[in-house]
Amino acid sequence: MTAGRAAGRRAGASGTRETILAAARRRFGDHGYNGATIRSIAADAGVDPALVHHFFGSKEQLFVAAMRLPVAPGEILAALEAGSRDASVSTGEQLIRTALTAWEDPAVRTTFLGLLRSALTSEQAARMLREFISEAILGPVARAVSAGEAGGTPGLAGAAGGARGDIADAEYRAGMVASQVLGLAVARFVLALGPVASASPDDLAATIGPTLQRYLTGEIRAGGASPAGGDGSARPDP
Amino acid sequence: MTAGRAAGRRAGASGTRETILAAARRRFGDHGYNGATIRSIAADAGVDPALVHHFFGSKEQLFVAAMRLPVAPGEILAALEAGSRDASVSTGEQLIRTALTAWEDPAVRTTFLGLLRSALTSEQAARMLREFISEAILGPVARAVSAGEAGGTPGLAGAAGGARGDIADAEYRAGMVASQVLGLAVARFVLALGPVASASPDDLAATIGPTLQRYLTGEIRAGGASPAGGDGSARPDP
Repeated sequence: MTAGRAAGRRAGASGTRETILAAARRRFGDHGYNGATIRSIAADAGVDPALVHHFFGSKEQLFVAAMRLPVAPGEILAALEAGSRDASVSTGEQLIRTALTAWEDPAVRTTFLGLLRSALTSEQAARMLREFISEAILGPVARAVSAGEAGGTPGLAGAAGGARGDIADAEYRAGMVASQVLGLAVARFVLALGPVASASPDDLAATIGPTLQRYLTGEIRAGGASPAGGDGSARPDP
Repeated sequence: MTAGRAAGRRAGASGTRETILAAARRRFGDHGYNGATIRSIAADAGVDPALVHHFFGSKEQLFVAAMRLPVAPGEILAALEAGSRDASVSTGEQLIRTALTAWEDPAVRTTFLGLLRSALTSEQAARMLREFISEAILGPVARAVSAGEAGGTPGLAGAAGGARGDIADAEYRAGMVASQVLGLAVARFVLALGPVASASPDDLAATIGPTLQRYLTGEIRAGGASPAGGDGSARPDP
C-alpha cells in the first residue's frame, strides 16, 4: 500500500522495462494474477502506473511479458510450424523442451508456481488463469492443430485425419497437452518426486515428447480406431 | 483448539469409523497433512484420540483411509496384476479409470486439492506429501513394474525388456505416471479448462490410458531404441 505515483526515475527505457518486469514477477508470484495490480507493480518499480501501461498495455500483456510463459504462445506456434517442416524433431518434443528451458530460470518457476497456488486457493484466480490459458495458449494451439488437420500443414495432420479438424476437438487436444505439462511441473518442482525431479531434460523430452505429439495429432478419443483400444464404447466398465 | 478428550460416543464401530474419516477428510483438506493432527481430528469427531489410533493406527494409515486415494496402493497393484492377465484392458487404462472413479466423490476431490494446495504453500507439507506418495504409491508401482520387467509378469514387460528392470528406472516410470494423473486433476478440477473439464471418462481413458501404459512399459528414455527418436543423445539443441 505504498504510493503508486512515485516519480518515474528512468535509467534508460530497457532498464526501466526490466525493473517493471521484475516487480511484476514478484507481485504475480506473491499475490496471483488478481492480487497484483498495475498500481502496486508500478509502486514497487518506482515508476508511474501510466508508464507501465505505456510499455506493456494491459495487465494481460504485462502478465505475458513478466511470466516469460513456460510455453509462450508465439513459441508454440513457431514450434508447431517447425514441427511441420522438420520431421526429425516432433512438435511434441519441441513443446516440452521449450517448457523445460523456460523453467530453468528460477524466476519463471517462482511465478509459475505462484499462479498455480493462487488458482488452488481462489476460485477467482483460477478463473482468471483459466481464461488466460484458454485465450493465450489453448486457442492458438487449437487453431494450429485444427488448420493442420484440415490439410494445411501435413506434419500436424498425423493419424487424426481431416474429419476431426474441428475447434472443440483441437481445444481438447491442447488441454491434454496442458495437463501433462502442468503435471510435470507439479511432480518435478512442487512435490519434487525424486526420479522425476532429477531426470535430465533429454530423458524428459524422450518420455513426454511422444505423449504431447500423440495428444496433438493421434487417435485419442473413445470409439476411435486407436491401435490399442478398438472401439472404446464397447469396453466393459471395470 | 477444542478439547481433544471428548468422551467417546459410539453409535456402533462402523458409524464411529465413518465419523472419524469424515473429520479427517475435512482436517486434511483444510490444514494439509501436517496441520491435521490425530488430536484435532478426534476432537472434531467427538471421540478420544486413543480410539482413532485403535481404529487406524498411525496418522499415515488414517491418511490413506481418509483420502480414499485416487489411485490407492492396493488398487494399483490389483490393476497391475489384472493388466498382466487381461490384455483387452491395459493397466494404464485401469489406472486412469480408478482415479476418475475416485474423483467422482466430491470429498475425495476436496481432500486431494487441499493436499496439493498445502504442498504449494509449505515446503514441509510438500515434503510430507512427497514422502507419502513415494512410499505408498511409487514404491509399490515401481516394484510391480520392476518385477514385470524382470520376467515375472509378461504383461508388464512390454517393450522395455529385462535389461532396464532396475528400481530407479521403475521409480521414474511411476513418477511419470503420477505427473500425468496429477496434471489431469489440475487441468480438470483446479483450472477447469473447458474441454478437459467436460470430457467423458471414456474419452479421458482413451486419451490417457495409453500414455500411462507407455510410461509403465514402453521405451521412454533418451538414447533408447524408441521408434520416433533414434539415439536421443545425438539430438541437436533446439
